[in-house]
Amino acid sequence: MQITNFNQLIEKARMSNARKLVIALADDEYVLKAVKEAVTYKIVIPIFIGNKLKINNICKKIEFNITGFEIIDISDQAVASEMAVKLIYSNQADILMKGFVPTATLIRNVLKQEHSLLKSKIISHLTLAQLPSYHKFIAVSDVAINIKPDVNEKAIIIENAVNALLKIGYINPKVALICPVEKENLKIESTIHAIELKKMFLEGHIKNCIVDGPLALDNALSKEAAFHKNIDSEVAGDADLLIVPNLDAGNILYKSIVYLAGGIIAAIVVGAKVPIVLTSRSDSELSKLYSIALAVCLLDKD
Amino acid sequence: MQITNFNQLIEKARMSNARKLVIALADDEYVLKAVKEAVTYKIVIPIFIGNKLKINNICKKIEFNITGFEIIDISDQAVASEMAVKLIYSNQADILMKGFVPTATLIRNVLKQEHSLLKSKIISHLTLAQLPSYHKFIAVSDVAINIKPDVNEKAIIIENAVNALLKIGYINPKVALICPVEKENLKIESTIHAIELKKMFLEGHIKNCIVDGPLALDNALSKEAAFHKNIDSEVAGDADLLIVPNLDAGNILYKSIVYLAGGIIAAIVVGAKVPIVLTSRSDSELSKLYSIALAVCLLDKD
Repeated sequence: MQITNFNQLIEKARMSNARKLVIALADDEYVLKAVKEAVTYKIVIPIFIGNKLKINNICKKIEFNITGFEIIDISDQAVASEMAVKLIYSNQADILMKGFVPTATLIRNVLKQEHSLLKSKIISHLTLAQLPSYHKFIAVSDVAINIKPDVNEKAIIIENAVNALLKIGYINPKVALICPVEKENLKIESTIHAIELKKMFLEGHIKNCIVDGPLALDNALSKEAAFHKNIDSEVAGDADLLIVPNLDAGNILYKSIVYLAGGIIAAIVVGAKVPIVLTSRSDSELSKLYSIALAVCLLDKD
Repeated sequence: MQITNFNQLIEKARMSNARKLVIALADDEYVLKAVKEAVTYKIVIPIFIGNKLKINNICKKIEFNITGFEIIDISDQAVASEMAVKLIYSNQADILMKGFVPTATLIRNVLKQEHSLLKSKIISHLTLAQLPSYHKFIAVSDVAINIKPDVNEKAIIIENAVNALLKIGYINPKVALICPVEKENLKIESTIHAIELKKMFLEGHIKNCIVDGPLALDNALSKEAAFHKNIDSEVAGDADLLIVPNLDAGNILYKSIVYLAGGIIAAIVVGAKVPIVLTSRSDSELSKLYSIALAVCLLDKD
C-alpha cells in the first residue's frame, strides 16, 4: 500500500524489527534527542560513536536511558566517520546517520574506495515532504548533494529515488521533470535534459515509473494550472516525485517547502549500500525522527 | 511609508491620478476581467488594442462598460505589440500591459531599437509576494526573464528591483543573495556571484539597500534558522528582496510561493521606461489587479 503521510511511515517502520543505527559523532543534543525518539518507537538500536563522557552527560540531561547500547569512544570527526562507514561495510550496522560531523567528511568516507558504500553509480539526496497544500507526499531530488547533474546523472537520480519510493509501497510513481517552462528552449539546459530524459523513459531506459516533462512546478502540482496551459499529461497535477534542474533550484524548493509552505520533511541519501540519514541542526525533531523511520522502511525489502 | 500588504498597495494606487494603460491584444476574457477591476478602482484608463468586435462582445458578457475608452482595432499579435510600445514611446500611454500575445513577442518590441523602451541596461522581472508565513512582503527577482544572469547583470537586477521598492516607500531594503549554501563554493557559481555582489555593495557600487549573501533561503527568511547556523547578518530572517541564482531556481520559488505556500503575487517588468504588466492566464484575478496597482504606484515619483 502506498503511504501518504508520516504517521503511516512510522507505523510501517514499527512493523519491522528494530535496525542497528550507527551515528557518526553522537555527542550532540540535537542528534541524541532524535535518536531518543526513534528508540522510543523501537524502530532502531543505536550504536553511538563519539566522546563517551559527553554522550553520557547529554543523555542524562535529556533523560535518555542508553543502558545496554554500544558507545565507541572516538572524538575526531574524520575517524568517527570512517569507523561508522566501516561498521556498515562489514554488516555490523544497518543504517548510517550523520551526527555532529560535516556532511562532506561523512560523504568522503562513504565513497572511499577501500570501504565504499556506493551501490548505484552516484549517491543522491531524497526529500519526502508532507504539506498542507498537496494531497499526498511530494518527493524531491536532488536538493543537497549533486550540484549540476548532467542528463545521465539525472537518470540515476530518478532511479535512486524511484527505487526508494517502490520500497515504501509506491507503484509506478509519477515523475515530473521540473523546468521554468514547458517547452524545449535551447538556452535553458534543464529543458534539454527533460526532453532527453522523457525520451529515455519512452525507450524503456528509465523503468518502474511514469516520467513527464518539461513541466513547470505549477503544472506538476496543480491540475488547474496545467489545464490553463493546455497541458495533457498523466503526471500534471498529480506528481509524486519532482526532479529539479540543479542544486540552486532544488535547495530553494526544499527550503520553501519547510519555511514558506509549512511542510514537514524526511531526508535521506539513497544510492548507497544502506540509507544514510543526513539531518541538519535546523531540522525539527519530528523531521529527524521521520528521516530515521524512512531509512528503516527502505531496508524492509532488502 | 513602507507598504506591507496589497490592501495598502491598492490604497496607494488610488491616491494617484488614473494612469493610461495600453493593452496589447485585449480581446481575451481573462485580461479584460483584470482591467475591469482596475477601472472599478479608478486607477487606470484603458486603451484597448485588439479585435474591436471581440472586445465589445467580451465586455458585454462580463458587464464591463467601456463607453468612452479608446479601442484600436488590430488583430495581429506582432502589430498590436508594436503599436502598444509606440504609444508608450510617444508618451501617449503610461503603462504597458501584455494581453493575449506571447511574452517573447511583446518583449521583442519593447527592446526594438527604433522605439526601445529600455531605460536600465537590462529589463528584469520583479515579483512582490504576500504570504501567510512571512511578516511582510517578499520581493523576488528575476523569476521570468533573465535565464542565467552574470554578476554584472545581477547587479542591475538588484538596482532595477531596489528602485521599484524605493518608489513604493521602502527605505534601504534588505537584499538577500540566495544560494544553496552560506559559504563560497567554487563549484557553485551562485556563491561566487554572491561574494562578488556583496563586495560591490561594500565598495558602494550597489546603493540604497543592504546586501548580504550567500544566504540559503531559510536563513534569509528565518531568524531561528540563521541562529542555528551561527549567521550574524542584518538581512537574515528579515529579507525584503531575494535575488535568485538563475531562472531555474527563481521560477521554482515563484511557483512554490503561489502553489504551495498560499501566497498571492503582483508581477511586473522593471528597467524599462515604464512598468510593464506581464500577467499570465493562470494568474488569479486578484494577482492581475495587484500587478496593475503596483505599476501605477511605480509611476508615482517619475
